[in-house]
Amino acid sequence: MGIKVYGSPVSTCTARVLAVIEELGLEYELVPVDLSTGEHKRPPHIERNPFGQIPALEDGDLVLFESRVITRYLVRKYGKGSDLLKEDTPVEAATVDQWIEVETQHFNGPISAVVFQHLFLPLFFGGTTDEKAAAAEAEKLGKVLDVYEVKLSKTKYLAGDFYSLADLHHLSYGHYLIAATPHGSLIHSRPHVKAWWDRITSRPASKKATAGLVLAI
Amino acid sequence: MGIKVYGSPVSTCTARVLAVIEELGLEYELVPVDLSTGEHKRPPHIERNPFGQIPALEDGDLVLFESRVITRYLVRKYGKGSDLLKEDTPVEAATVDQWIEVETQHFNGPISAVVFQHLFLPLFFGGTTDEKAAAAEAEKLGKVLDVYEVKLSKTKYLAGDFYSLADLHHLSYGHYLIAATPHGSLIHSRPHVKAWWDRITSRPASKKATAGLVLAI
Repeated sequence: MGIKVYGSPVSTCTARVLAVIEELGLEYELVPVDLSTGEHKRPPHIERNPFGQIPALEDGDLVLFESRVITRYLVRKYGKGSDLLKEDTPVEAATVDQWIEVETQHFNGPISAVVFQHLFLPLFFGGTTDEKAAAAEAEKLGKVLDVYEVKLSKTKYLAGDFYSLADLHHLSYGHYLIAATPHGSLIHSRPHVKAWWDRITSRPASKKATAGLVLAI
Repeated sequence: MGIKVYGSPVSTCTARVLAVIEELGLEYELVPVDLSTGEHKRPPHIERNPFGQIPALEDGDLVLFESRVITRYLVRKYGKGSDLLKEDTPVEAATVDQWIEVETQHFNGPISAVVFQHLFLPLFFGGTTDEKAAAAEAEKLGKVLDVYEVKLSKTKYLAGDFYSLADLHHLSYGHYLIAATPHGSLIHSRPHVKAWWDRITSRPASKKATAGLVLAI
């Protein structure tokens, strides 16, 4: 059987799952889902995820969707000794969860909007970047990263002095922000955020997982 | 010491935390944070949550923010025998997590926008409901609930035949949707969603937790 990831190598959410798989050194198969033909909105993919999005995971009889749920499942099942969730120590586990949720609730919205405006909109939808909208979202992202800067002046990683899913979940959108938008300085201009970014992106697993994020306009 | 919840009884995110506390039968103190004077944006609250939002939890030396992180922590620490997370059975735990994430990623956005337009905007900001915007968000919410209707035709609750955090997280916004907007039929017109809603809101803990959600315009 083995692990199957239904997704696309250029997708941020697929790369989020691949980053965990690479950290844990798991064998897997990436089964391409072609977004350009709407394959994600039709059977059989719509049966894997009724919201018609990628990625989905198949592991034996289990089918899961939502990238941040898949990462948690994989760590629990295959990463017992790792620090990625710290579930053996309740307070540290709660701190990891808190920064996972910060990525979800505060970081993901503005950064995905910036990347959409500068990369996905022109590339996939034939649209033109709305510079004003992109700048407004970049400003929001900057305020979020101001909070990160303070936190990362106290600990090496978001949840403490250990690398966790809370850090890993940032890799793919951060990659595109720097590679494909004019707003990479949001990360590079904040010394502690930059040091953290260098630390998490220099991991061999991070490099493998983001190697597929090669879109260009 | 005991558990302290810094928040407001009329806040959906505060009520989400109270719902777990009531399910687990815990003693707690609700410490009011006055949003109308900006108390949430100033010390000491900004030190509890650097994003300046409510609620925050204090449990001994631990301070946590983000309602969905607090609920998970409380279940892990005080709800060992409960089904609310099912962490002893990995596949069921992943299924709970998946539907927790569906609430976060798909349900929360449109329902909070509808409640904002019809309740918070006129009540707190002196604004007028943008009926067109509200209707567009209601339509999105309907599509999400179409997926719920299919799922709930197969199992009594979202993650299976047991009540979990995935269900509980919906209580507070669902309450305001029905009590304070003209879009309650989004829940009542879908038979399996309605049966689920009646089931989860009739729990004594749900009634206690939503008793404070009494805003009216």
